[in-house]
Amino acid sequence: MREKVVHVSRVEPKPVTEGGARGTRIRWLISKEDGAPNFSMRYFEIEPGGRTPRHSHPWEHEIFILEGEGLVEIGDREYEVGPGTAVFIPPDVFHSITNTGTGILKLLCLIPHVD
Amino acid sequence: MREKVVHVSRVEPKPVTEGGARGTRIRWLISKEDGAPNFSMRYFEIEPGGRTPRHSHPWEHEIFILEGEGLVEIGDREYEVGPGTAVFIPPDVFHSITNTGTGILKLLCLIPHVD
Repeated sequence: MREKVVHVSRVEPKPVTEGGARGTRIRWLISKEDGAPNFSMRYFEIEPGGRTPRHSHPWEHEIFILEGEGLVEIGDREYEVGPGTAVFIPPDVFHSITNTGTGILKLLCLIPHVD
Repeated sequence: MREKVVHVSRVEPKPVTEGGARGTRIRWLISKEDGAPNFSMRYFEIEPGGRTPRHSHPWEHEIFILEGEGLVEIGDREYEVGPGTAVFIPPDVFHSITNTGTGILKLLCLIPHVD
């Protein structure tokens, strides 16, 4: 297992196309492919007006907002978030993230290895 | 298990005092105490000239640099890092982080639950 040191700008962004996502890109910064044994670090960019799909799954999210303004929906609650906000979304709770600002919403979202 | 949404400024910083650390503070943003099932998100601030101890342990780090300039030592290699750099440090490899800039070095460091 080797270390990895990479700038986000060197990692290819891929569109998120699963149900209901709009204007959202993902970059996998650290993942199983790098030998990470337990969890993966992903970097998301959401365009103004864009959003991730409202969905749930049996694993958690640990999120940190880097830039921009957004609304995070978790279950039946909504939270305004901005740079420096950390968000824990438990497993099996419906959630979505919407960009409510005028710039790109940038955030890290980490998940455990799920298979 | 409940969600958690918190701004970093609302989480108390604690000095890191283990062997050799200088000018380093940690804020536990998401941890077992919040019900996180698999891994913890910590926010570090390292003062100019400060550093984390050189040490190793049987769990990995997944790091993202938020602000500042630093040098990350991993085994016998060194990497200059800045905002937007992601770093994977495998288990059981000696490592340290030194602030080489004039501002505070701010970073996220995530670890799996280890007990």
